[in-house]
Parts: sequence; structure tokens; C-alpha cells
Amino acid sequence: MSINEMLLPRELREQIRKGQWQTPTTGIAPGYVQGNLVMLPKREAFSFLLFCVRNPKPCPVLDVLEAGAWEPKIAPGADLRTDLPRYKIYRNGKFEEEAIEVRDFVQDDLVSFLFGCSFSFESALLSAGVPVRNLEEDCNVSMYITNRPCIPAGPFSSPLVVSMRPMKREQAIRAIQVTTRFNQTHGAPVHMGFPEEIGIDNIDKPDFGDPVTILPGEIPVFWACGVTSTLAAISADLPLVITHAPGHMFISDLRDETLTLL
Amino acid sequence: MSINEMLLPRELREQIRKGQWQTPTTGIAPGYVQGNLVMLPKREAFSFLLFCVRNPKPCPVLDVLEAGAWEPKIAPGADLRTDLPRYKIYRNGKFEEEAIEVRDFVQDDLVSFLFGCSFSFESALLSAGVPVRNLEEDCNVSMYITNRPCIPAGPFSSPLVVSMRPMKREQAIRAIQVTTRFNQTHGAPVHMGFPEEIGIDNIDKPDFGDPVTILPGEIPVFWACGVTSTLAAISADLPLVITHAPGHMFISDLRDETLTLL
Repeated sequence: MSINEMLLPRELREQIRKGQWQTPTTGIAPGYVQGNLVMLPKREAFSFLLFCVRNPKPCPVLDVLEAGAWEPKIAPGADLRTDLPRYKIYRNGKFEEEAIEVRDFVQDDLVSFLFGCSFSFESALLSAGVPVRNLEEDCNVSMYITNRPCIPAGPFSSPLVVSMRPMKREQAIRAIQVTTRFNQTHGAPVHMGFPEEIGIDNIDKPDFGDPVTILPGEIPVFWACGVTSTLAAISADLPLVITHAPGHMFISDLRDETLTLL
Repeated sequence: MSINEMLLPRELREQIRKGQWQTPTTGIAPGYVQGNLVMLPKREAFSFLLFCVRNPKPCPVLDVLEAGAWEPKIAPGADLRTDLPRYKIYRNGKFEEEAIEVRDFVQDDLVSFLFGCSFSFESALLSAGVPVRNLEEDCNVSMYITNRPCIPAGPFSSPLVVSMRPMKREQAIRAIQVTTRFNQTHGAPVHMGFPEEIGIDNIDKPDFGDPVTILPGEIPVFWACGVTSTLAAISADLPLVITHAPGHMFISDLRDETLTLL
């Protein structure tokens, strides 16, 4: 375990705020909830929150801030404008640039949304003897855009995005049991076994993240993925949307276990 | 089982629409999800949805309709303006009148919210051998306003309201297990054993519903209650709020089991 794995969330956020940590947050602050970020104008905040409530598996809401507020209740003292290692900025639905802080981009009418992330259940899978290939191979989890539409709301729509972890069939049973409890961080899988059934033509070519090895006898198991919230946010032609850069999450003070089944 | 207990939700809603059913919906359409209703102006819909997302145990969102829409996705063909047996109408935060349909009251800027209801887990408790005293005594469940504040949002705030069912300690353990799965219909209890700790001075005098018998050796077990959503809605000084009358719920086409842990 490196020194960074032993730092508390607050200490890591301080490092990130000073620009000393600009890489993905996978594996750091283990046991603490990491979050997907979406910021968008208040005018469309109701429709976007409605999209999330209608699609809770891909978009499990952890926290929503009042317009122009940047300190989440799940991380007192934090600032969402500076405390993520990398951001993506979209204008009129198009990606414009990346940034390591967004104080110069935000406006007082922006509402910030934080969503649960599958990092929260990966250590529980490991504890249960279920392999997590992306951790074993030290790469980003494989993510795919499926043919399953989310329920739209106002101007927001998106296909369901999934993350994939390969495992043996018996391990998949255990993985379903284990992740069912993590209902605020994507919960139980949405599919297993037949990628083509959910519109994935080539399992070796993920739409986001990295490909991982699927061993003989293993099946791919798919969980709803927070990237869905990003696709939905940029599906509407909004003047400004800010999100985290993939893998560069917000580290909260919440323990993973506090989010299991309330 | 009476004839009404055997009718399908759609058939019951037709009876209600025709004014042939104006009494509480406890025990009818068993196995189908019943919902709490709140209608309020679109201007405050984001803040109210935020209140619900921040307080998911008392306010588990089942469905939110676009402004001016009255047909919920969870009950195709239904009309929220006519298909509940009794409504309450509030103006400027004050109760004004009851009505058996609200077509003449609604405006196109009203957004309708439906919330899960503890009726959904009562039959699961019975199946697990846990007594449900309000069913045994054929009365409304006992409900209390607690000293626990919900997390506010915009102009909305409310103390947590709870429902209470008395049972033996061993039955309470089983009840916690059983209701944990029903996370969209209030889930696990929020307290048990010491009413005074949550601000209930006289367990025999519920704030809503009816008192029930607590037998020797039984403890009171408390679940978050959907009445919280009504108190929150009328806490803001809004020109118009419409809710169901207590116990007179909306009967959806959803089966209770579809709402357990997705």
C-alpha cells in the first residue's frame, strides 16, 4: 500500500486542490465513497434530477447542491470547483476542453450533482472472493454503451452505459448477492453472459476505459455505470455542462458501508 | 376476501373514478403498490424533488409526472385527478377542503409526485409471521410526528413522521430483515423500543391514524412514513398543494415485489 492509499479523503482533496494529484483516483482512499460529478444550469436542474430519479441504477444520487454552492454535505470543507483531479467542460452539448480546476468556468446558476460509483463495491467483491480484473490488471474498468434506452426526462435522454467485470458463473452468483446491498452505488448487475443481447458487438473494444482479459470459463457481468449521467447531461443542448474526467472522481468522507441498504 | 379485494387495480380505479369507492384503500388490491400523492407548482418542483432525494426513507419517489400530465407510468390509463378516493386541498400552506376528485382544482403548472407506502410490506410481514396490529384491529396504522428533522431543500422542511407496529423483540429482528428488501417503500425501521427518544411522549395518542393495542412483551417498531411528504409540501407557502387524504391512496399496476431491491 502506497502512502497515498493511507491518506484520509480530506488530505487527498487538499493534495488535489494544490494540483499535486492529477491522475485517476482508482484504488486511493479505499473504503471511502467516490462520486461522479455533473454540473449544469439551474433552469434544467429539475428535469435532470427527474432523469436521475427515473434511472436510479445508472444515476444513484448521492448529493445535490443548491445553485452556486460548491461544498457537498458528504464532504464538509470540500470545494467541487477544485477538489477533483480533472474535469471536462462541454458547451452546447459539445466537449470543449479539460481542466484541473473550474473556478474560472462556473457560474452562480450551476447546480452540482454527485452520483455513486462502482468503486464502492469492488473491495466488497474482493472480500467475497470475486475477482476484479481491472484491479488485477491495473487499468480502468471496461465500459460500453448499450442498446437499452434510459427513461427520458425533459430534454435529457441517454442509452444505458454499463461497466463489465468477467468472472466464473459461481462467482457471478456471489457477486449478485454482494452488490445487491450496494443499492446507492449501482446495486446488482443489469445483465450477464450475452453482450450482444444488450447491443455490445465487440467485448474487446469498450467505448470507455480499457479492455480486460476474459479467461476461459468466465462470463462478462454488467453493472449500470455512472457515465450514463454524463451522456444524459450533454444530450441536452445546454450552454455549459461540467463533469469529472473519467476515472478522476470526487472523494467524499462517506464510508462505502454507510451507503448499503438504508 | 370480499369482492373488492379481488378486483384488479384498473377495475378499482374505475370504481373510484365513478365515485363508487370513497373510503380508505387499506387491504384492497393486495400485492399491488399503493402510493402517496403530492401535486404542487412546477416553480418549486426541483426543490421538492430535491427534498425527496435527500430524505428517501420517508419520501421514496415512485413516479414524477411532467407538469400538467396526469397519467402515471406505473398505471397506464389512470388519471391522478380522479382516481384517488379522496383528496385534500391546501392553499398558501393551509388546509382548505377535501374533494373526491380535483379536475376543477388542478392547473397545467402542477407537477404530480407519487411515493411508496408501507402497505407494500405489511403482507410480507404477515407471511413472515410478524403481526400487523392495525390489520388485526381493522384500523388505520398509528402515525407520529417525531423530533427528528428531515434534511431541508429550498423552502421545504419537515420533521420525520413515522408509522408504528408493535411486536415481540424476536419478531422485530425478522421485521428488520423482511422490510430491508422493500427499500422503495420505506425499507428497514428507523427506530425501535424507546418512543421518547424520538420525541413521542404518548404512544397511545398518535398524531395521525388510530391507536393500536401494545401487548405485554411487545416493543413499538417505527418506520419512516409517507405523511412526511405532505407535511413538507405544505411547509412552503405555495398557492396550491393537492394531496391524497390519509389512507385514501392511489392504487398502481405495480406489484409490491417489483419494488424490492433492484
